[in-house]
Order: sequence, then C-alpha cells, then structure tokens
Amino acid sequence: MRLSVDFHDTGAVAATDRGFTYGDGLFETLRVVAGVAPLWHRHAARLSESAGRLLMPLPDTDRLHGEVLRLSAGLDDAVVRVTLSRGVGERGYALPRDPRPTVVVAAAPLATDTVAAEQGIAVHACELRLARQPRLAGMKHLNRLEQVLARAEWADPAVAEGLLCDTEGRVVCATAANLFAVVDGELLTPPVDQCGVAGVARAEILAAHGARVASFFPADLTRASEVFLTSAVRGILPVRALGAHAWPPGPVARALQAHWARLGLPLPNRAKDRDR
Amino acid sequence: MRLSVDFHDTGAVAATDRGFTYGDGLFETLRVVAGVAPLWHRHAARLSESAGRLLMPLPDTDRLHGEVLRLSAGLDDAVVRVTLSRGVGERGYALPRDPRPTVVVAAAPLATDTVAAEQGIAVHACELRLARQPRLAGMKHLNRLEQVLARAEWADPAVAEGLLCDTEGRVVCATAANLFAVVDGELLTPPVDQCGVAGVARAEILAAHGARVASFFPADLTRASEVFLTSAVRGILPVRALGAHAWPPGPVARALQAHWARLGLPLPNRAKDRDR
Repeated sequence: MRLSVDFHDTGAVAATDRGFTYGDGLFETLRVVAGVAPLWHRHAARLSESAGRLLMPLPDTDRLHGEVLRLSAGLDDAVVRVTLSRGVGERGYALPRDPRPTVVVAAAPLATDTVAAEQGIAVHACELRLARQPRLAGMKHLNRLEQVLARAEWADPAVAEGLLCDTEGRVVCATAANLFAVVDGELLTPPVDQCGVAGVARAEILAAHGARVASFFPADLTRASEVFLTSAVRGILPVRALGAHAWPPGPVARALQAHWARLGLPLPNRAKDRDR
Repeated sequence: MRLSVDFHDTGAVAATDRGFTYGDGLFETLRVVAGVAPLWHRHAARLSESAGRLLMPLPDTDRLHGEVLRLSAGLDDAVVRVTLSRGVGERGYALPRDPRPTVVVAAAPLATDTVAAEQGIAVHACELRLARQPRLAGMKHLNRLEQVLARAEWADPAVAEGLLCDTEGRVVCATAANLFAVVDGELLTPPVDQCGVAGVARAEILAAHGARVASFFPADLTRASEVFLTSAVRGILPVRALGAHAWPPGPVARALQAHWARLGLPLPNRAKDRDR
C-alpha cells in the first residue's frame, strides 16, 4: 500500500488528530483504472457537500485528485481511499479555532472478484439495525462502528455482504454498498436521509439510468425480480441469495454493468482472469 | 501534553489505524490528583465491558493504570485520556484476524474552573437529537460526530455545556457529561440504554448516593428543584440556567461535591485559586 499524509509520503498521523480521537472526518473510496478515476467528480462533490455539513474546511479538490493519481500511478487497477479529518485538536468537542484538516491518501492494487459480478453474491441479513440520525445520514463519515459490528455478524467467506435495515425495520443498504431492487418492473433504491451513505455508484445510477427512491421492507424483496448492490469500487453486484430467497442476475444489473464498463470501470481484470 | 502510544513516548499512530479510519475504539477521560486516580476501577470496568461489546481484546488494565500514573507524574492535578483502538487494519470493516489494539495515553495539567462548580453553569438546549442505537449506547466509543455537531451549536464562552435529547425528545445527557435532576424531591437521571454514555461519575453517584433511572422531557426540568451535570473530570456542576429557566445550586449537588472531595477529587485547586 502507498500512503501519504498531507501530501507527504508518510504513514503516520498525530494521536491527537480528531479523526483518531472522535472519528471527526470523512472518507471516499474509489477505483482508479490505468491512471483514470472516472467517478472523481462525484466523489469530490460528496466530499465537498459533507465537509460543509460537518463545518470543515475543504482542501483543494483538484490537488486531492492529483494526489490520488500520483499514489495510484503504475497500478493497472487500484483502490484508493481519501480520508479528510478535522486535524489536530485540543481536548474537548469544540471546533478548533484554526482548523487544519488532515488529508490521508492510500492506494493499493484492487483485488479482483469477477465471480461476484458475474454470478452474484450471497448476502447475510444483519441483526444490527442502523440508528436514524438525519444530521449524519448520507455522509461517508468516519463514525463506522455500526458497520464494524454488522460486518462482525458473519465469518463465512461465501457471504460477501450484509443487508442493513434501520431501527424501524426498513431496508437501507449493505455494510459497504447501496442496494437496488426491481419490484413490479420498477427500479427502487431506499432513501438515505435518515441513515446510510449516499453512494457515488448510487448517484451515478440515479443520474444515468434513473430509479425511484422509495422505502421498503425486507419482505418486499421476495417480490423483486432482481436485487443488486452498488459500490464505487466493486461496481454492480447482483444479489444471488439472501436468507432462503434466491434471484438470478437480472437484465438491469447487466445493463448497469455494461454502463460501468463504458465509464471506464470494467469488471476487474476480466480478460486477465479468463486467460488464467 | 505528555503522550504515549503502545507504552512508548511518541505522539503518532498509523494512518491505517482503525481508530482513525472508522472511529473503531473506545476512550476514557479521567482526573488524577497528586498521583492518584480515585475512580480508576470504574474506568477500567467500563473499558472492559465496552471492549467485550465491541469484540476487542482488552489490554492488561493494571498496566494501563501504571501508564496513566507514569504520564501524570509530577502534575498536581491532571486530566488523562486513555484511548483504545482496534489497531491497524486492512481495508474493509471485517475484524482483523490478528487484532493488536492501539493504546494511546495523553496527560495534561487540568485547567481549573472553581466558579463553575461553585456558582453553576449555563447550558444551551441543543437542536441536534441523539440517534437511538442500543448496540452502541452507554459506551464511550470513538464515534463522536453527534457530540462535535452539538458542541458547534454555540460559541458563547459563558455557556459551558449543551443539553441533548434523543430523537423522541427525551432528555439524555450533556455533550460531555451526564445529567441529574431533583424532581418532586427525588433524584433522577435518564437511562443510557438507547443513546448517551454511562459516565463514571454517574456510576459513582448511582452506587454511593442512589438515584432513580427514569425518562423525562425538558419540560419536566422546569419542575426540578435542582439540576446538575456530572463528569469524571469536572465533577459535579450545578446547572444555573437553561434557556429561560434558572436554578440555584441545591443541596444534593453540594452533598455530592463533598462526596467528591472525600474521594480525593476536590474542587480543582480551590485553595490555590483563593490565594490568588
């Protein structure tokens, strides 16, 4: 893994950084293919909007983009995480008078999983329910204990993700992906104004393909003709099985996978894998 | 400030530490007077219980206690923060196979505020509502964005704290303290099983003095004969004013301040301040 902190090649942050002491910050995780980050504009837009909501100064996003490309240079297919914390702070929750955000960029080769994209994944129905907090909903912030506890519910490597509902029982998302379902012929995705993350892949689908943002319950998924998860890094992942229910990969997921490839985000190293 | 990371005198943690990337950890903030941490057993007990809930290995608490005393040595009155994160992790929420928690201890001289303890403090009624999440409630974990946003609601230095209610409008706590109120002659404190932190000072009061854990609304506080906040570091702080309502410091707060002094946690540097 290649790491930089505040645009210097180092892997350490201050133990007094509010990212460490309070989870006080944001992150983006993106895919860079052969030196291009096709969805960067959406990552930058979310980071900018979320920094505003958290009352944090935003570093120059073009400079961030340059750092993303610098650290992923030479990698055919990379996953890059950009973390923006509020920086070093004194004791106490009050905002620093002179805030100097910390920027961490980490790049690593992307592990391939073409089988997941082609055949679909098995999903665990998580017991943990997401708390409803509109002041934090939608943001990819650093307060991720709910996701950590949800992900700890299963160890079976054959299960790739977990379905999360909110405290009222409504479907929200997966631990690290958004969810879409085709119900009665219509593409639906849950709202993320009470909990969950407004994913970049979700935003791309809403803009390029369209979907209705609507609340539904897990039982409604049994009526779905197809269900899939979306992630800026992993792309479009058909859900093959959830509990006792099973779906084949459907035409909407396939169409969106084709859209992803046209964006410059093909199924990871698909040709290479087939050569093996 | 004196800092140690994993019992070495350094102030840096890895940028890949899950404390920084996910707020995946816990902390304790305690007061050490002349080399003694009177409530250490309660801090150790909470850390132990919370580490169990977060599925984190717990370092030897006697060794932690030793580190707290080492870093506060020579300080008459110190505030010490102990942070326990899940340590360095790979990408993704899954628990590390070989978890090695990070321990950060930070000690600083305690800033005195005898006026707050003697005359009481003014409290802001926060607009932010705490989300209800029983899986995280009670713990002093590193996901503190709600507290950061709540504390950002006021800048007036004459206001010392903020009152927080949950999403159903019930009183929970302050941004960094628990709350007690005497209503109809009975000492009450809100439950912390849906949100809020089970404070060490709160636990001491429940054990040594007694109080009824009961839900109530801000309107009920107008019927209270006294209201006070409690903190392991700041002790017993009478609430003098909340919005349009005012209370004098009452006899229960005074009795608990005397109990605090008997524990070895007197009003900070009270004699010294009076000599000035």
